[in-house]
Amino acid sequence: MQRNLFNEDHEAFRELARNFVEKDVVPAYPDWEKGGRMPRAVFEKMGALGMLGMAIPEEYGGGGAPDYRYNVVLQEEAARALVTLSTVRTQLEVILPYFLHYANEEQRKRWFPGLADGTLLTAVAMTEPGTGSDLAGMRTTAVQDGDHWIVNGAKTFITGGMQADLVVVVARTSTDPDNRRKGLTLFVVEDGMAGFTRGRELEKMGCKVQDTAELSFVDVRVPAANVLGEVGEAFSYLGHNLPQERLTVAVGSVAQARSAIAAAIDYTRDRKAFGTPVASFQNTKFELAACSTEVEAAQAMLDRAVALHVDGELSAPDAARVKLFCTEMQARVIDRCLQLFGGYGYMMEYPIARLYTDARVARIYAGTSEVMKVIIAKSLGL
Amino acid sequence: MQRNLFNEDHEAFRELARNFVEKDVVPAYPDWEKGGRMPRAVFEKMGALGMLGMAIPEEYGGGGAPDYRYNVVLQEEAARALVTLSTVRTQLEVILPYFLHYANEEQRKRWFPGLADGTLLTAVAMTEPGTGSDLAGMRTTAVQDGDHWIVNGAKTFITGGMQADLVVVVARTSTDPDNRRKGLTLFVVEDGMAGFTRGRELEKMGCKVQDTAELSFVDVRVPAANVLGEVGEAFSYLGHNLPQERLTVAVGSVAQARSAIAAAIDYTRDRKAFGTPVASFQNTKFELAACSTEVEAAQAMLDRAVALHVDGELSAPDAARVKLFCTEMQARVIDRCLQLFGGYGYMMEYPIARLYTDARVARIYAGTSEVMKVIIAKSLGL
Amino acid sequence: MQRNLFNEDHEAFRELARNFVEKDVVPAYPDWEKGGRMPRAVFEKMGALGMLGMAIPEEYGGGGAPDYRYNVVLQEEAARALVTLSTVRTQLEVILPYFLHYANEEQRKRWFPGLADGTLLTAVAMTEPGTGSDLAGMRTTAVQDGDHWIVNGAKTFITGGMQADLVVVVARTSTDPDNRRKGLTLFVVEDGMAGFTRGRELEKMGCKVQDTAELSFVDVRVPAANVLGEVGEAFSYLGHNLPQERLTVAVGSVAQARSAIAAAIDYTRDRKAFGTPVASFQNTKFELAACSTEVEAAQAMLDRAVALHVDGELSAPDAARVKLFCTEMQARVIDRCLQLFGGYGYMMEYPIARLYTDARVARIYAGTSEVMKVIIAKSLGL
Amino acid sequence: MQRNLFNEDHEAFRELARNFVEKDVVPAYPDWEKGGRMPRAVFEKMGALGMLGMAIPEEYGGGGAPDYRYNVVLQEEAARALVTLSTVRTQLEVILPYFLHYANEEQRKRWFPGLADGTLLTAVAMTEPGTGSDLAGMRTTAVQDGDHWIVNGAKTFITGGMQADLVVVVARTSTDPDNRRKGLTLFVVEDGMAGFTRGRELEKMGCKVQDTAELSFVDVRVPAANVLGEVGEAFSYLGHNLPQERLTVAVGSVAQARSAIAAAIDYTRDRKAFGTPVASFQNTKFELAACSTEVEAAQAMLDRAVALHVDGELSAPDAARVKLFCTEMQARVIDRCLQLFGGYGYMMEYPIARLYTDARVARIYAGTSEVMKVIIAKSLGL
Repeated sequence: MQRNLFNEDHEAFRELARNFVEKDVVPAYPDWEKGGRMPRAVFEKMGALGMLGMAIPEEYGGGGAPDYRYNVVLQEEAARALVTLSTVRTQLEVILPYFLHYANEEQRKRWFPGLADGTLLTAVAMTEPGTGSDLAGMRTTAVQDGDHWIVNGAKTFITGGMQADLVVVVARTSTDPDNRRKGLTLFVVEDGMAGFTRGRELEKMGCKVQDTAELSFVDVRVPAANVLGEVGEAFSYLGHNLPQERLTVAVGSVAQARSAIAAAIDYTRDRKAFGTPVASFQNTKFELAACSTEVEAAQAMLDRAVALHVDGELSAPDAARVKLFCTEMQARVIDRCLQLFGGYGYMMEYPIARLYTDARVARIYAGTSEVMKVIIAKSLGL
Repeated sequence: MQRNLFNEDHEAFRELARNFVEKDVVPAYPDWEKGGRMPRAVFEKMGALGMLGMAIPEEYGGGGAPDYRYNVVLQEEAARALVTLSTVRTQLEVILPYFLHYANEEQRKRWFPGLADGTLLTAVAMTEPGTGSDLAGMRTTAVQDGDHWIVNGAKTFITGGMQADLVVVVARTSTDPDNRRKGLTLFVVEDGMAGFTRGRELEKMGCKVQDTAELSFVDVRVPAANVLGEVGEAFSYLGHNLPQERLTVAVGSVAQARSAIAAAIDYTRDRKAFGTPVASFQNTKFELAACSTEVEAAQAMLDRAVALHVDGELSAPDAARVKLFCTEMQARVIDRCLQLFGGYGYMMEYPIARLYTDARVARIYAGTSEVMKVIIAKSLGL
Repeated sequence: MQRNLFNEDHEAFRELARNFVEKDVVPAYPDWEKGGRMPRAVFEKMGALGMLGMAIPEEYGGGGAPDYRYNVVLQEEAARALVTLSTVRTQLEVILPYFLHYANEEQRKRWFPGLADGTLLTAVAMTEPGTGSDLAGMRTTAVQDGDHWIVNGAKTFITGGMQADLVVVVARTSTDPDNRRKGLTLFVVEDGMAGFTRGRELEKMGCKVQDTAELSFVDVRVPAANVLGEVGEAFSYLGHNLPQERLTVAVGSVAQARSAIAAAIDYTRDRKAFGTPVASFQNTKFELAACSTEVEAAQAMLDRAVALHVDGELSAPDAARVKLFCTEMQARVIDRCLQLFGGYGYMMEYPIARLYTDARVARIYAGTSEVMKVIIAKSLGL
Repeated sequence: MQRNLFNEDHEAFRELARNFVEKDVVPAYPDWEKGGRMPRAVFEKMGALGMLGMAIPEEYGGGGAPDYRYNVVLQEEAARALVTLSTVRTQLEVILPYFLHYANEEQRKRWFPGLADGTLLTAVAMTEPGTGSDLAGMRTTAVQDGDHWIVNGAKTFITGGMQADLVVVVARTSTDPDNRRKGLTLFVVEDGMAGFTRGRELEKMGCKVQDTAELSFVDVRVPAANVLGEVGEAFSYLGHNLPQERLTVAVGSVAQARSAIAAAIDYTRDRKAFGTPVASFQNTKFELAACSTEVEAAQAMLDRAVALHVDGELSAPDAARVKLFCTEMQARVIDRCLQLFGGYGYMMEYPIARLYTDARVARIYAGTSEVMKVIIAKSLGL
């Protein structure tokens, strides 16, 4: 269905992104998968092309065009080529907003140029072993000691944790039992700080071009200058960015589901079974028609949500709805498309297999489908 | 999710529609259900309020504001009150377009005032026993005889057929075997014409405030002045209006699903099971959250389609996608909502039971879900 | 899939049942639907044929062959002919067990002959307005007064309530707040007892050959001789019979789903769309293959459960699983079959429409799907 | 639900299998996953324990107890410990039957002892690149040359192909265009035969303890003594064994789904979210209740099918139904269970992630769900 989300600038950026993906990503992607991450040089290439700093003010080396739709375009172009740039996505859509919104002038000068040119890689360390997304149960602590804070704790499931130069760590700075939410603060822990170590790299089902790490903080002395935003305000900061995080997941889900359909159409037209192309079976046609319908519904919902988000009007329950719908749709659609590949769909050399294993996490991270339902139900007065 | 489809004029019309539904429909609705139709007086009331002639030029007694969104508003307001105005809907969204697009000046003068003031009720007679929506297999014929045409044939599943003053009949006017599609023509058969009789009124599962009839035409002499549009062009006329017909079904599906959720929220808050409100169970919350999510996806898709339709840019495959998605969604959502009513959901005095039986036809009429998939698959090159 | 549930006696009974259904039920069924119940004469015919008293000892006029499988056969044969004998089913599978298990010698003499010959019709009155299946919340009371009990209360959703000669009423005989479950007793209220009145007959979505009534008890003096079983023991009696009640629903669900498939196969072979039989489309084949697969799974599960039940070894959680699976399966299968009928599926003259509206209650009565899940989850230690 | 499939002998074998799995499989399994196969020593251990030769006559070193239920027990015990013995399963349930049914006396002497003691590993090479399961399109040929046959062709998706000592190759021995099915023959190609090479090992989404290979045959001279069964009869041989192959997949599917539920129950009882065990949420309870219900339905269907199979009475369409139902059920159940693990469900160190990726192939191999539907539909007369 005809979309109405993008203007000429976005389409120009799409051209740039498409070229970049074709030349710099697709050929190297199998190697990245084996290595488990995207090389730093690629971030720097993206930085040089202006793809990382669109939202960063020009005075700090960025593009000065903060517009969430560029992120949408970038994800769409990656998905179109059957790859994902998940660490980039995390950096641009999940982590960068913390810097953009809460960094003070000194921090902007210190970090924005590197964020824009791709030399500073980031991660956000929120989840802890055993607490999941329950911020109230967070046990990492930071205790003030002169102009430093002493951070202690362990984090897990940290996307990009192995590569990160800057890790935004959520730690408890007050243990007032009456207000466990109030006492959280964001700290920027830097690579090389004593006591900050990276533990195991977790083996995931999919999302292979992205490391997922356990991080450990033992008496890490973090300068007060590395506090991001106000002390004690992290809870609301995190909450504020969650709708965008969820939207981001949904953007990927829709783009990847769409790609799966395109791949299945190509495959079933080529491939013969019992002497005729698989695409000529009514079952194939109906399956793909159903998938296409679901994708278009999701796209319409998503585009509307993106438009609202750009205008600052996307509510948290609506972001939850969009994430819930788009990720569940992605699972259904990719599963159905894979089935049309027969045995080849189970072979990792066919991108549909990767789309399938990548997809499974979408209903889990950035808040599970169940957490989304809790949020939505509350908004219905239930 | 915040919508962006309507302007102030639509909202003013919504106010009017809401009042009308509350005062003139809701109290009388149980009687209409027993009687199997909406009384003529109600059409005339709607005519007097200007609700039937919005799209008809002012010179013929209409409102001169052709805008599909008024139809959307009217359906939404009916659904909101847990009723449907299905014969009105058929008249305004399915049949009136034929008159608006193809009536010549003389016909406009003859019929438009009655269409606008609610004194002329209409039906369209396309489906025949045994052929369904396959126009190529149509067997009703019209043979020219001087300045008349002699129409013979049988039609079935005719919405509003028992009440109609004017029936738009599709008949075959050429039997060229090489071009079975080319030989169809639209005739306006009028109440009282000799040889035109109404047969059985079919008992349906739901949609009780709407008659569904079998019509018979035996040597009916129809004046050539009652040919609507060009002789031989009905196939393309019918095809041209199908996207709107399907959109219309989708509009009702979304509005009714939304209403079912509202009814279920009200019911489960009130109703206690094992000492606590049903709404307090997590299953209730999750079911309604899932339903709400589906409705919002459908709404976004539908609103986008309506906007495209208003601009004349809605493609036939996209209309098929919208109908497929919204009607399937309606079925799922209303089924889940009904379940939350327990035994009361099975009792016809609870509107949810009516929503359920009404809904079942949505996946069938105006083209079944399977026909939609055929259309969509073709658009995918399959 | 080949079944192994029945022996020659069952098959002989099947023959009898099939003949009865064909001659005495099918031709009259449309009239019964209009009348909303099965005539008493038909019960008496069934009594005369020995179909009602199979489980009743011979000395009281019964067949002396208590074997649940006869009930299975009877339901299957009704479903095979696209009808249901729901009041009979309720009498034989839900109510008769209370008499068989708990009637004393005097009661046996008084009531068994009439139960066997079809002159005594019954109902069980458990559900109350507002409490649903929550026995603990039951408000109908019985207070002892000499050798009578004074019964007061209101019951709703009573299957066969309008016709019943004997109503097994569950009433509270003790109001010990510490043990609300202990204080329930079964009373046999007889037609004509002063203060016992039948209220509205509820209009249901389907199940038209079966009345569903509201009953009212105002100071009804019930002789102590009409207490069924021990005073205060009704809670355990009701619980004891619930697995069979649920199995009964499942039997009907599977048999009706199977019938829907047979009807759809017949219809789609006959009916043409676009010049070829609907049965020749791959979608039709796949839909029916999927439906057939589901029915066979349900049948295997059900037959195993019936065999366990006959041996007295069916657990309550397994009965819940069987009911949950078979009724959900029925809903899916009948919905898919109906779709293959196109517009005709929505017309009540096609039995598939009746199967559809009948089916909706199966997920609700005898404990909703949600109640089944509660029971199953407990059995999993959750 | 209480099962009735096994006798004391099976239960004794279960004990043996359980011990073997616990001691010899579970501890080493992670290593086997990395290595991509089960070491030969383990086959030999199983041989020594008598687990491989149950069905082989005693005179050739086997157990002389051909009973498919031992295979069921072995799969169930593996699944219970959250591992799979897929190469063993292929050998015992898919390949061994060809030897048992079609080997002549000389071949029995030559191969049965090694098959029984685990020193001879096998594979069956049927699928070819581009033809899938369409035997009629098979292009590998064997041309007679004295007392040898010259085999040429390529095979793909060969389970255990890298390790196999004996490969049962299906080749075309007649090219009569009128009877393409008649001209297929089984050849036992042995490791080391000139011209037989193993190509790439295919990387699969799951099923890591099992190699899947491409095999190539270039002018391989196979002695006539290695023809298995009659020349030209392979088509019927393959068809004859297909029901057991499909049953075998279903056995694994049900056992693994059951294991997933057990794992999810354990996990959700332990794991807390927002301060309470995940198992205490109603959603968790209902999800697991629904999963348990599906598994019990599948188990009942499967057990019935196994009983029929043991009696030689399982029809091909019923085997197709069982495979279709059990594998689709497995997919739904494991997906729902995984979701309850949250982020941990995506980590390969949790067996649920492995169950998920393993499961995806079940709807594909041994005939896709679509092929099953074709078979079932035919049996319905469609």
